[in-house]
Amino acid sequence: MRISELSRASGVSIPTIKFYLRESLLPQGTPTARTQADYAEGHLHRLRLIQALTEIGGLRLRDVRAVLQAIDDQALGTHELLGTVHHALGPHLDGEPSHDEVQAIAEVDRFLGALGWRVSQQAPARRTLARALTTLRRMGRDADAGVFEPYARVADELAAREVATVSSTGSRLEAVEGAVVGTVVFEAALVALRRLAQEHHSARRFGPARRD
Amino acid sequence: MRISELSRASGVSIPTIKFYLRESLLPQGTPTARTQADYAEGHLHRLRLIQALTEIGGLRLRDVRAVLQAIDDQALGTHELLGTVHHALGPHLDGEPSHDEVQAIAEVDRFLGALGWRVSQQAPARRTLARALTTLRRMGRDADAGVFEPYARVADELAAREVATVSSTGSRLEAVEGAVVGTVVFEAALVALRRLAQEHHSARRFGPARRD
Repeated sequence: MRISELSRASGVSIPTIKFYLRESLLPQGTPTARTQADYAEGHLHRLRLIQALTEIGGLRLRDVRAVLQAIDDQALGTHELLGTVHHALGPHLDGEPSHDEVQAIAEVDRFLGALGWRVSQQAPARRTLARALTTLRRMGRDADAGVFEPYARVADELAAREVATVSSTGSRLEAVEGAVVGTVVFEAALVALRRLAQEHHSARRFGPARRD
Repeated sequence: MRISELSRASGVSIPTIKFYLRESLLPQGTPTARTQADYAEGHLHRLRLIQALTEIGGLRLRDVRAVLQAIDDQALGTHELLGTVHHALGPHLDGEPSHDEVQAIAEVDRFLGALGWRVSQQAPARRTLARALTTLRRMGRDADAGVFEPYARVADELAAREVATVSSTGSRLEAVEGAVVGTVVFEAALVALRRLAQEHHSARRFGPARRD
């Protein structure tokens, strides 16, 4: 298909597609004339994946590139790929941790150790948790890492199910793309549903009475 | 305290504090000299809240302003405040929904209706869910809104607990700030824990064997 058809089918504008081509996020099409190229289903699929990562996952362009390179790296196993995706998803907490954050990181490490979870020392989510704990304390709450216990329990339940559904049949590309999309899309869905559920329970507790 | 002490106590740089003062996110201090002012505990507290919203919540400055105004609006009830926070948290999906997204929105509405959740038609999370569903389909998955069912179940469980812990004693400021911080901080923690749990289960299924 031509670039105009690729644009129509994906809902991505032609300038954006040209930008992705220039940035090598999208492979070049097959040249059909000096200024024209032909694009295949694979291009459309890749374009949709890029959209999913940027729109739903909120990934920066450099992180999209890292994820796509990991997908295309045949030598990379599913577990390593997932690590790349998690790293790309951020958040990117830069800078040296403050004194109270260093202490919180140690507490989070003990908490994760007690759960028996097998997670890398470099996982950015460790620092996110430590930052969350530090924030609670700075805002005046008397909290320790145990405050995360109910969240860890449901996270464990969801993740066990999710990892079990990663396809072990089908192509490697299907499996890894499925893992990437699943991680990003269901994270957005979980966050959205928690907010909706909060609204629902808040309406029941604090909202105006409803005539049912 | 002086601005330098405020900076030290909060970990926020003086230029950033001055920026917040100019943008009226932080109230002015009490003038003590032509170029000096005195800041109180309330300033430190507000500064930490702004940091929580931007760093952990990833809120844009205009959204931080909306949340702070809602907190300061004495006429606003807890339920309305939570709506403001949710709206500020985004994501901000702009533009007209595409044809398949319009259809997905209708499906999400039926799904939420079947759950019996009392949520506003304007809740941005509705569109997030619809976008998530559309993305799954565009990536080739044969999914309907029922795919969100396990996520809705745990979201409901967490939200019921969270709303129940919103303080009904103490000052209004404590209650609403607590609700804001809880929403933002535990969302970040939940996302971080799901990723860690995925890594753990992925390591068990796909990773190298561990000698325990």
